[in-house]
Amino acid sequence: MAKIPYKTYLTEEEMPKQWYNMRADMKEQHDPMLNPGTLKPMKAEDLYPVFCEELCRQEMDSTTRYIDIPEEVQAFYKMYRPSPLIRAYELEKKLGTPAKIYFKFEGNNTSGSHKLNAAASMAYYAKEQGLTSLTTETGAGQWGTALSMACAHFGLDLTVFMVKVSFQQKPFRKAVMETYGANIIPSPSDTTNIGRAILAKDPNTGGSLGCAISEAIELSMADDNCRYTLGSVLNQVLLAQSIIGLESKIAMEKIGEYPDIIVGCAGGGSNLGGLMSAFMQDKLTGKADPRIVAVEPASCPSFTRGKYAYDFCDTGRITPLARMYTLGSDFIPSANHAGGLRYHGMSPILSKLYHDGYMEAISVEQSKVFDAGVLFAKTEQILPAPESNHAVYGAIQEALKCKETGEAKTILFGLTGTGYFDMKAYMQYHDGTMTDHVPTDKELQIGFDGLPKVD
Amino acid sequence: MAKIPYKTYLTEEEMPKQWYNMRADMKEQHDPMLNPGTLKPMKAEDLYPVFCEELCRQEMDSTTRYIDIPEEVQAFYKMYRPSPLIRAYELEKKLGTPAKIYFKFEGNNTSGSHKLNAAASMAYYAKEQGLTSLTTETGAGQWGTALSMACAHFGLDLTVFMVKVSFQQKPFRKAVMETYGANIIPSPSDTTNIGRAILAKDPNTGGSLGCAISEAIELSMADDNCRYTLGSVLNQVLLAQSIIGLESKIAMEKIGEYPDIIVGCAGGGSNLGGLMSAFMQDKLTGKADPRIVAVEPASCPSFTRGKYAYDFCDTGRITPLARMYTLGSDFIPSANHAGGLRYHGMSPILSKLYHDGYMEAISVEQSKVFDAGVLFAKTEQILPAPESNHAVYGAIQEALKCKETGEAKTILFGLTGTGYFDMKAYMQYHDGTMTDHVPTDKELQIGFDGLPKVD
Repeated sequence: MAKIPYKTYLTEEEMPKQWYNMRADMKEQHDPMLNPGTLKPMKAEDLYPVFCEELCRQEMDSTTRYIDIPEEVQAFYKMYRPSPLIRAYELEKKLGTPAKIYFKFEGNNTSGSHKLNAAASMAYYAKEQGLTSLTTETGAGQWGTALSMACAHFGLDLTVFMVKVSFQQKPFRKAVMETYGANIIPSPSDTTNIGRAILAKDPNTGGSLGCAISEAIELSMADDNCRYTLGSVLNQVLLAQSIIGLESKIAMEKIGEYPDIIVGCAGGGSNLGGLMSAFMQDKLTGKADPRIVAVEPASCPSFTRGKYAYDFCDTGRITPLARMYTLGSDFIPSANHAGGLRYHGMSPILSKLYHDGYMEAISVEQSKVFDAGVLFAKTEQILPAPESNHAVYGAIQEALKCKETGEAKTILFGLTGTGYFDMKAYMQYHDGTMTDHVPTDKELQIGFDGLPKVD
Repeated sequence: MAKIPYKTYLTEEEMPKQWYNMRADMKEQHDPMLNPGTLKPMKAEDLYPVFCEELCRQEMDSTTRYIDIPEEVQAFYKMYRPSPLIRAYELEKKLGTPAKIYFKFEGNNTSGSHKLNAAASMAYYAKEQGLTSLTTETGAGQWGTALSMACAHFGLDLTVFMVKVSFQQKPFRKAVMETYGANIIPSPSDTTNIGRAILAKDPNTGGSLGCAISEAIELSMADDNCRYTLGSVLNQVLLAQSIIGLESKIAMEKIGEYPDIIVGCAGGGSNLGGLMSAFMQDKLTGKADPRIVAVEPASCPSFTRGKYAYDFCDTGRITPLARMYTLGSDFIPSANHAGGLRYHGMSPILSKLYHDGYMEAISVEQSKVFDAGVLFAKTEQILPAPESNHAVYGAIQEALKCKETGEAKTILFGLTGTGYFDMKAYMQYHDGTMTDHVPTDKELQIGFDGLPKVD
């Protein structure tokens, strides 16, 4: 057989025309979202004030296996997709591993990550519903950038609540979003009741994702033509991100490969949920049994040290309750944590699959993660985002295990994005000022103590 | 016929295996490089102390039409190439033009630009010759980043003299280069005689490309195992960059297209010289006659307002003399100029072709260039580098002419890179503090007065 190419692209005709809904193949569904007041399960209609209607239906849909990607979204995807499936020949050589390492690279677009896949879907459905604006929050900035781009394309106004510490550290991310016409507000802000309340308690807070979510929801609720959007955690997000896994599977088929191990970084689950989608289908239907490994930061270890419990999705406690692996909605990762993956909870779908043994998870300190990322940058010539470095780390660990055992396993990992707006973290790594923080059990207990009492 | 895809990629088999040397098809050659002391034409051997030997031979080679791309360089190219040829459907729609706009996008790699194409060639040949290190200069930072990446790959040490004003404004560019192991020195520095002399004259100077070149050459001359490299202007650079035009032509053939107009930004000529290469061959050999348009900054207008004269390639006046369009080696673009395209001269090959009427050139103020770039970002979803915005501007002008005349011309332009490390310039554009500077004739005269007297 001829040598496998460095990069495998699908043609535009080969690109998926439908998203895949993992829930349709799950033996057991995750527990339903609950109204935090009544503790009753919520219906799609109950969410209409928050999200646009089609997305609410998708959120609740556990039976439709494939959902058509609207033509306008397909056209949008074609501007930056398909993303390449890349064989990491140079990394393999450097590691001296018999493993075959592949990565699906989602960073070749101006948002710098896979986030654009779901942003396109949300902006499109909002436009279709006749809405005129959206709100959202952003931490590291990838999601805010992605939604800014999608809103510029579909003609919607956008307000982004950017976690204050990130707003201060990343003026360039802000400038990219402004280039696409978005309005950026540092959170907590004095533009919302929740923001004002948090500022009253702690005027110097650097903010958190959970707090920015609360503010974005509050603002959207004040305007009938506006809805809120979230870039991770939700079922509707995983659905749109399934494009990653669907493309990956087709690309691997084209070169006669199938992964033994799939590795992804995990914060709220948007990337890993997308990457693993088509392979999880094989697993759920008994066609194949690849290992699926989530890699999360030791400083925000929701899978590995969180509780599987009902919790709020935001700090302000205005969202529905979702059952998920969570560190508690009050949990904020320590200030030295670089990059994203700082959400207190985890996608309910991934949480259920993890709980039922379909997935594994590890957590790792960021200095080790950056060791892996710099090695990857030097060998594969792509500078990864801090989030992606977690997946790189996980893939390298698996490749080194293969080196020990001599097994030539096929590893697929998700390189979610590029680190061009995260160079401050790389500078800290280079000058030795990057530090790790692994929360003590006592520190974690504070978040658990705040969990809502359900049943 | 089916709709032309948004993006056209070559397969790895279709990728060019040879570079194309435009000089082999030029009716007349550009005047030879001269030894600045004797004013005698230089031979390849005369350059051996400066560049590695194979590159010196390439520099002087006006007869070999095709030069094999070494297998190691082909392998390196496959890590980030082929670059896509993209149909700008959204931009066309926005402009309401009957023109078909294509762009060759070279920004999907960590250096953020086409510069990596020549960096790979230079690092490879240096390694082959048994050298252990290279030096270079960088302005906007793209070339320094590209060479850092190539040196990490081929195992060479690298010292980059970074124009001081850029060093201060772009700490993140520096951090990327350091990730790849390069040593970055702000120029002028006290590590060289030339740097010390310039600092003695003006301790507060922000530096210039010409000065950084002098320092990089001086350092390389002090070490037998070290050579100097330059990322533009030289024939050896245009040769390596011909990969852009060769790929573009094959990609256009695949979709049944041929450009009526080719537009590129021009600073030293590396990108435009590469993009136009395969099409200029058609022009030189009478097979086709596309218009070729260089777009340069009004603040550094070497084609449009320079003299076609022998000049030094650096401020320190230690390089050979080249006949080219030049503003004089003392010329420094005004401090408000954002991004690259700030070199005082222009590729001797492009200068000759322009002089002989094979090309056109226009110059434009940066505020107009950023208008074009932001329009492009919003429609095509890629945020261009300030340099690339010049080409975007030129392409839009041609498309608008088509709108007036109703002609459906095919326009190809070079999107050389992304603006992720240039957000300060975009911030100035957004907040209204970006200003233009068009040098007066009197200001330009200062540079011309310093031109060396030849014949």
